[in-house]
Amino acid sequence: MKVLSAKGIKGQIQEELKSAVDDIKEKNVQPTLAVVLVGDDPASAIYVKGKQKDCELLGIKSILKQLPQETTQKQLLDVIGELNEDSSVNGILCQVPLPDQCDEAEVMRTILPEKDVDCFHPYNVGLLTSGKPNFMPCTPFGILQILKRYGYDVKGKNVTIIGRSNIVGRPLSVLLSLKGWDATVTVCHSRTEDIKGICQQADILVAAIGRAKFVTADFVKKGAILVDVGMNRIDDPTHPKGSRLVGDIDYEGIKEIAEAATPVPGGVGVMTRSMLMFNTINAARLQNGMDPFEI
Amino acid sequence: MKVLSAKGIKGQIQEELKSAVDDIKEKNVQPTLAVVLVGDDPASAIYVKGKQKDCELLGIKSILKQLPQETTQKQLLDVIGELNEDSSVNGILCQVPLPDQCDEAEVMRTILPEKDVDCFHPYNVGLLTSGKPNFMPCTPFGILQILKRYGYDVKGKNVTIIGRSNIVGRPLSVLLSLKGWDATVTVCHSRTEDIKGICQQADILVAAIGRAKFVTADFVKKGAILVDVGMNRIDDPTHPKGSRLVGDIDYEGIKEIAEAATPVPGGVGVMTRSMLMFNTINAARLQNGMDPFEI
Repeated sequence: MKVLSAKGIKGQIQEELKSAVDDIKEKNVQPTLAVVLVGDDPASAIYVKGKQKDCELLGIKSILKQLPQETTQKQLLDVIGELNEDSSVNGILCQVPLPDQCDEAEVMRTILPEKDVDCFHPYNVGLLTSGKPNFMPCTPFGILQILKRYGYDVKGKNVTIIGRSNIVGRPLSVLLSLKGWDATVTVCHSRTEDIKGICQQADILVAAIGRAKFVTADFVKKGAILVDVGMNRIDDPTHPKGSRLVGDIDYEGIKEIAEAATPVPGGVGVMTRSMLMFNTINAARLQNGMDPFEI
Repeated sequence: MKVLSAKGIKGQIQEELKSAVDDIKEKNVQPTLAVVLVGDDPASAIYVKGKQKDCELLGIKSILKQLPQETTQKQLLDVIGELNEDSSVNGILCQVPLPDQCDEAEVMRTILPEKDVDCFHPYNVGLLTSGKPNFMPCTPFGILQILKRYGYDVKGKNVTIIGRSNIVGRPLSVLLSLKGWDATVTVCHSRTEDIKGICQQADILVAAIGRAKFVTADFVKKGAILVDVGMNRIDDPTHPKGSRLVGDIDYEGIKEIAEAATPVPGGVGVMTRSMLMFNTINAARLQNGMDPFEI
C-alpha cells in the first residue's frame, strides 16, 4: 500500500506558494493574514503558532490578535470590525473553539467575505455550492491536492465520504461533485443504514467522522484509495505522553486491500495549513484587482 | 404503483399556507411578493401568471414589474434596488431566463438575502449548506413535501439524485443529508460511470437531468420510490399542440417495479410554486420579527 504523505508533496506546494508570494510582492502588495485567538486553549495556541510559522516561511505577514478568555462577543466583534476595515489586512481567521460566551456563527458572518480565508462565511459557502468559489474550504481542497499530486484523478470515480460536518464532509462533497472535478459522491453519516456496504463500493473513501479506527478492513474495496481526516487522541501507555494521535481508519489489515492511504499524522492536516496560505495569497490578489492563481 | 400526484396533497398545503397568511394579516402585515419579468418569453409569462394566481388565492399581494426585452443590466439592478428598499415588499423574484445583455448571477446577488424567496442568493445557499437555512430552495423542498405527505420517510434511506444543477440536484442533495432529514445521498451526473448500477441501489431515486425518458425500468430497484423533476417537451403528432410534456422517467415497464412515482405534469412542478408562497410568508414573518412557520 502506498502512503500518501504530505511530506512527499509539501515541498512542491511550498515552492508554488512562495513563487506566488514573490510575484505579488513585486507588485508592491504585502499579503497579510490576521489571526484572532481568544482564550488560552493550549491546542488552539499550537495551531495558531503553526499558521504563523507557515506565513513566515512564505513571506506572508502575520498579525496575532490575542484576546483574554473572558472577552465578550461585543469586544470580539469590534476586533473583527477593525480588521475588516484595515485595508492592509487581506485575510482574517478566528481560531475555534471560542469561549462559551462567544457566538461562533455570528463571528463567521461578521468577517468580510473577501477576507474570509477559512471559507466559513455563508456567502463563500454559497458561492462554493453554486460552483463559483472565491475561496476553497481548506481541508477539502487539501485532500484534492493530495489526490491530484499523487496522480489519482477523481473524475467519474465513486467517492464515499463518511461524515457531514461543515468543515470537511459537506464542503468536500459539494466540491467533488462540481463540474471539473466530476466525482460521483455519496455522503454517509451516523444515520446511514449499512454503512459498510456503501463504503465497500467506493473507489475513494474519505473518513471524516472523528471516531478512532472506525473504518476497518471490511469497509474497503480491493484497490481503493483511502483518505483519513481523523485526528483522535487515544490512550497509549507505551507513548511518552501516555497518548497518541490516530485517524479514523484502522490500518490493521488494510495494507493488503487498499491501493493507497493518507497517514495520520502527516497527511491531510498538514495540507489544510497550506491551503490557508493559498487562500490568503488569493485574498491579497483579489483585493488588488488581480485574478486568483491556481495550484 | 402508487401515483404521488400534487393534486392529492395540494389542498392540505393550501390550507396551511392560507391559515399562515390569515395569521400574519391579523398582525397587520400584508405579505407581498414582487415579481420582475424582463422581455416577452411566452413560457416565462405563463410561469409568472401562475405565481400571481397562487398569491391571489392565498391573499398574498403580488406586484409585477414588467420590463422590456431591451432592458439593460443597470436598469434591471435599479428596479431590484427599489424593491430592496421598499419595506412593503417582502419577497422579490426575478423570472429567468433573462435576455443576453443581463447577468443573472449579479441579479441574484443583488436581491437582498432577506427578500430572496427563490433561495438563489449565495448567502442563502450558504446558510442552507451549513444547515441553518432561512429560506428553502423551492423545488427541493417541494419534493420533500410530496414524500412526507405521502408517508415516505427519507431518514436513513439511500437517495440517489441524477443531476447536479444549482436549482434542483445540488440543493436537494445538501438538504436531504442535513441533520433531521438524515438521508444517505448520492449525486450522479453526466460524468458518472455505471449510472444504472448506482441508481439500482436507490430506495428513492430523483431524476433531475432534463432528458426525456432517460430513466428506464433497468435503473430501478424493486419497491423504489421515484421522483421525476423533468419537464421536457417532445414531439407528439397525436396531441393537439403537436407536442407534449414528459418527465425524465420512462414510465413504460416501471409500474411493475416501483412502489410509487410522481407524475409529470402534476407532480413536482406544482409543489415548487407552493414552496415559493411558503418562503414569501416566512419572509414577511422574519422581516416583522416573528419566528418562521413550518409545514
